Amino acid sequence: MDELGIDALLLSLGADLPYLTGYEAVPLERLTMLIVTVGGEATLVVPRLEAPRVTEQPDAFTVVAWDETDDPVALVARLAGAPATAAVGDQTWARFVLDLQAALPGTRFRKASEVTGPLRIVKDAAEIAALRAAAHAVDEIAGVMRERPFAGRREAEVHRELVERMLELGHERANFAIVASGPNGASPHHEPAGRVIGAGDVVLCDFGGTMHGYCSDITRMFFVGEPSPEVRDAYAVLVDAQEQAVRAATVGTPCEAVDATARSVIAEAGLGETFIHRTGHGIGAEAHEEPYLVAGNDLPLAPGHAFSVEPGIYLPGRFGLRLEDIVVATTGGPERLNEARRDLAVVG
Amino acid sequence: MDELGIDALLLSLGADLPYLTGYEAVPLERLTMLIVTVGGEATLVVPRLEAPRVTEQPDAFTVVAWDETDDPVALVARLAGAPATAAVGDQTWARFVLDLQAALPGTRFRKASEVTGPLRIVKDAAEIAALRAAAHAVDEIAGVMRERPFAGRREAEVHRELVERMLELGHERANFAIVASGPNGASPHHEPAGRVIGAGDVVLCDFGGTMHGYCSDITRMFFVGEPSPEVRDAYAVLVDAQEQAVRAATVGTPCEAVDATARSVIAEAGLGETFIHRTGHGIGAEAHEEPYLVAGNDLPLAPGHAFSVEPGIYLPGRFGLRLEDIVVATTGGPERLNEARRDLAVVG
Repeated sequence: MDELGIDALLLSLGADLPYLTGYEAVPLERLTMLIVTVGGEATLVVPRLEAPRVTEQPDAFTVVAWDETDDPVALVARLAGAPATAAVGDQTWARFVLDLQAALPGTRFRKASEVTGPLRIVKDAAEIAALRAAAHAVDEIAGVMRERPFAGRREAEVHRELVERMLELGHERANFAIVASGPNGASPHHEPAGRVIGAGDVVLCDFGGTMHGYCSDITRMFFVGEPSPEVRDAYAVLVDAQEQAVRAATVGTPCEAVDATARSVIAEAGLGETFIHRTGHGIGAEAHEEPYLVAGNDLPLAPGHAFSVEPGIYLPGRFGLRLEDIVVATTGGPERLNEARRDLAVVG
Repeated sequence: MDELGIDALLLSLGADLPYLTGYEAVPLERLTMLIVTVGGEATLVVPRLEAPRVTEQPDAFTVVAWDETDDPVALVARLAGAPATAAVGDQTWARFVLDLQAALPGTRFRKASEVTGPLRIVKDAAEIAALRAAAHAVDEIAGVMRERPFAGRREAEVHRELVERMLELGHERANFAIVASGPNGASPHHEPAGRVIGAGDVVLCDFGGTMHGYCSDITRMFFVGEPSPEVRDAYAVLVDAQEQAVRAATVGTPCEAVDATARSVIAEAGLGETFIHRTGHGIGAEAHEEPYLVAGNDLPLAPGHAFSVEPGIYLPGRFGLRLEDIVVATTGGPERLNEARRDLAVVG
């Protein structure tokens, strides 16, 4: 903070707070905020009725509970002192940012990720172990799904199954479970609904959650009956694109180069226009975080960077394909955390 | 907006956007934002890969999709014009607020709730019907739970059951399901975990979700075996406090007077110090919204205001009690939407 010229760090919603304290703020209208001053004082301001949930860590921070008729913004402003520059948690609600700006009119506000980003982007051995454990849990689900029936079931039912399996296998939270069948697959963030999966459908399953504080995220494709030559060929292109991109993700390689690798394989097959999103995102305490594998990001990969590699091919009105693994950059080369099979999965 | 001196409305995460458009932003790092100018232009800026999820409403708003290498903040700033005053959605992430402030240096930022709050606080007949339907779904669950076993089960298992029942009974989303047994009940927002519920425990279940866009929220108490005279007496005080507060919630009564009514009943029983939170919160598209039944809020209740009435009694280290129903203020008097039994529920 001192090096960055930041006098106070103000953290509320999002992963920064649990990353530093083990405590996660409740996303409600009552403000929870950790104030860290450059002098080293750390105070967690919490609503009185949530104070019993906090495990005090006297060496790390003190707790101040506010009552229903108190003004928590005034309390935070007082504890922050009159900082010239304050860094506020990136996911803090606008209402609190605006109130804090009014309460601290002389303060310049910056993003807390300027402070926490460089800490969080490099995963240590324990964090990689946690990501690997979460990856193995969803790998197991991906394996089980190869033997499960798809035809005749609604997308929402398969969604429920994925959520329940994540919880059963140790995730404390299921963050998402996209099940996009047939033409719905062409919408990368499709919301599973009432469509009944049928024979001949291509089904995209992209699911992940949080386990011991770290995220999983995997995408596998399921083909209801033997796919057409066109679908089979497109899937082969995708597998190749993903494999090449993973291999490209070596220490020192700029993020955008990994993206370009996946993109060029798909473009060479004449499908360049169908790959409408970046190749990947960092992953850790949050499902999406730095580093982003996207054109324009020249950040070189470093040991301990963990990220998804997930190229896609989307044909509007027809079908969509995506294949995703979590990869860690190491001095020994890129290492996939997901080990679930990537060969063609024909299901019933 | 014109009356309030607001030139542009900028909505992202939270209930304002689906309230006005039917579309809900995805809580991720890619910005989704509706720009409404005082001239009446409305544009929804969405990431390209989420655009297929948007149902275009040409009469209401146009859609502009941004690509992975575009700058969505610059796009929003351009579409907003150079507003003297912009109102930004209360739950918009701080990172976007700070970026928008940098991109619109001449703009004064206010909260979107100044515009949307007065619209959302008064529920019309269709909204009350939706709240009632959601309330009846959780009423049914509260009824079923009176016949279910509690002893020997972990809090987390009962939590799972409540979540699954909400989804089965038509909720599209379970927002929370607090199961707090024995001494855990004294933490009003306790996170259900591994504690095994035992004979003699008092178990607090507070659960709610979203059904057709409107929220449910109910708290009922379950007593594993006949409660002690002390618990029984405290519960009788609580039932009385809740009943008196509901009766007090007539049109024209200030919110704080409803809170004071519940508080005085509990104080008269010598338990005033144990009721550590406000009496209630508004409910609608969000689980917590205006009006808040809290000391200091002199807003008079109006027809169509919908809110929880949920006094509590918390004895640290021993047990906690809360009783909650959703109530609508009408010209005919306060109307409870929840009809689940409130008499002592002794379970196995």
